[in-house]
Amino acid sequence: MSKEFQKLLESYKSKINEIVVGELKKRKPSSLYRPLIYFLNSGGKRLRSILLLLCSNAISRNMTDEPINQAIAIELLHNFTLIHDDIMDNSEKRHNKLTLHKKFDVNTAILAGDALLALAYEYLNRDLTFNSKKIFEEFTTALTVVCEGQALDKEFETKRKVSSKEYFEMISKKTGALIKATCKIGALTRTSDERIVNKLGEFGETMGIAFQIQDDLLDVIGNENLFGKKKGSDLVEGKKTFLLVNAQKKARGKKLDKIEKLIKNKGIRPNQIKEFIDLFYELGVIDLATNEISKLNERANSILDDLSDEIEVDNLRQFLSLIINRQN
Amino acid sequence: MSKEFQKLLESYKSKINEIVVGELKKRKPSSLYRPLIYFLNSGGKRLRSILLLLCSNAISRNMTDEPINQAIAIELLHNFTLIHDDIMDNSEKRHNKLTLHKKFDVNTAILAGDALLALAYEYLNRDLTFNSKKIFEEFTTALTVVCEGQALDKEFETKRKVSSKEYFEMISKKTGALIKATCKIGALTRTSDERIVNKLGEFGETMGIAFQIQDDLLDVIGNENLFGKKKGSDLVEGKKTFLLVNAQKKARGKKLDKIEKLIKNKGIRPNQIKEFIDLFYELGVIDLATNEISKLNERANSILDDLSDEIEVDNLRQFLSLIINRQN
Repeated sequence: MSKEFQKLLESYKSKINEIVVGELKKRKPSSLYRPLIYFLNSGGKRLRSILLLLCSNAISRNMTDEPINQAIAIELLHNFTLIHDDIMDNSEKRHNKLTLHKKFDVNTAILAGDALLALAYEYLNRDLTFNSKKIFEEFTTALTVVCEGQALDKEFETKRKVSSKEYFEMISKKTGALIKATCKIGALTRTSDERIVNKLGEFGETMGIAFQIQDDLLDVIGNENLFGKKKGSDLVEGKKTFLLVNAQKKARGKKLDKIEKLIKNKGIRPNQIKEFIDLFYELGVIDLATNEISKLNERANSILDDLSDEIEVDNLRQFLSLIINRQN
Repeated sequence: MSKEFQKLLESYKSKINEIVVGELKKRKPSSLYRPLIYFLNSGGKRLRSILLLLCSNAISRNMTDEPINQAIAIELLHNFTLIHDDIMDNSEKRHNKLTLHKKFDVNTAILAGDALLALAYEYLNRDLTFNSKKIFEEFTTALTVVCEGQALDKEFETKRKVSSKEYFEMISKKTGALIKATCKIGALTRTSDERIVNKLGEFGETMGIAFQIQDDLLDVIGNENLFGKKKGSDLVEGKKTFLLVNAQKKARGKKLDKIEKLIKNKGIRPNQIKEFIDLFYELGVIDLATNEISKLNERANSILDDLSDEIEVDNLRQFLSLIINRQN
């Protein structure tokens, strides 16, 4: 990643945080908005809002008239899903800080999430004149599909076997759809060319799926100080990740028994984490995940190749590389 | 209420239920949409969607091109708030049926509510071309304000004293804002005349406040078979209703002690309900509520008088009378 690109990301991130927290501080009642300030101040890389701006700028660069409000909208939509998902998953921490419902309580978190979604729509509508109907449609479709993805993920909790197809459907909906919408909305702020909009959507979806598999992988191979959650926590919770789904498919005999026992018990004890990580290596699912991410990376890059005569793809390539190589 | 008007209401209600449930039945996964079908089939008068259509038709009647999608949107937004409020209030029943989180579970209800809000925005955007930016703005503002109202209502739970001013601010936000938006959006589908739009908004807000005070009153004087919840349940829960807020203001000596004890204990036992209803009568707060509703009724009617040269107000008057005189 070039230094210039790194500086660009940092400046976008600060700008977005400043605007959003500034807005929330102006609002009342504080029982509703203070928890949101806490949550947004607790971390987050603002990747989706930055990606939206990069897609917009890739088509035509007009730094004095960037779709910053729509970028904020997509970021707030994402954070809304995090707040409600954390309740449903009963997660303790995010970015090494207490989740909203743990810091406050479940009711506060439900309502704060709702208000954040409202704020997302407020920002989406601000200064929006070009392609507004389509942008609303993409944004709302993403919201619907993300809910469907979360429902599938919840179904997985009680399923004894999840197929690869089911896994990919779930992550396409839960993670891919929002990143797809991010790219499409970024594009739609600058062009009505359906080919460009759809190709960028495909780029986003592909990258989103890679992002999620990377997430599953980082739970096992990541540096937990960087990653912000305990290593192996997906294993402890018995989550149907890319690794577990494929381990179940590949394992035989005693190895399969171990996997099935994990699934039956809905997770393992923390002292078993190392054993299961070793098992994943033995079964070759760590390599499988790495290869899958590589393939998705290639596919996303080739979409950018297709677009490189029409739009400026350099920053999008750097962004993709950032996602693929992220350690946290 | 004329028979013709009653038939109109019934036909709108069936039409709306049919469209929405039909749409939900088409969608997957069923773990997300089946709970919503349950909830929407459990009752509800669809008053807000009907009101939106009446406002639209009051301006210009075009029965082949009614804003039915926007009417559905406002109804779904309302139902979204009910699902999440029922969780926060830990309510057992609504319309004599189990609430969504009691029939299923809290996580299912959080996510189903979110998906219903997404669906509301889908409907809002359907076939919307005229005044779409303003309509999105009104809809989203209502969502924000309703969340703020709910936050204030939650604050009341731990407050030892709520002033009349605070009570009215809360219900204006929690109940008034959505009915205001309903009327404004109905108007905006047909006109850009700000005077008409704002006047109809004022009409809706006034009626909404009357609706809420009537709700508080029906808890105490209503027929519980019609009303769909147990008589005195607000008292049992210690809710800061119009009646309780004013009873606290008016009571002295032993009567005040009783009220303060109710507040301190966050409610009363079911066998004390009759005693407290009698106390409300003695303190004159039942009359006060009835008078307040009458005043709001007059004000709402006078807004319609102001508009009667420009729009067709007859059905809106009948709707208002229905709200003011409702027994459930």
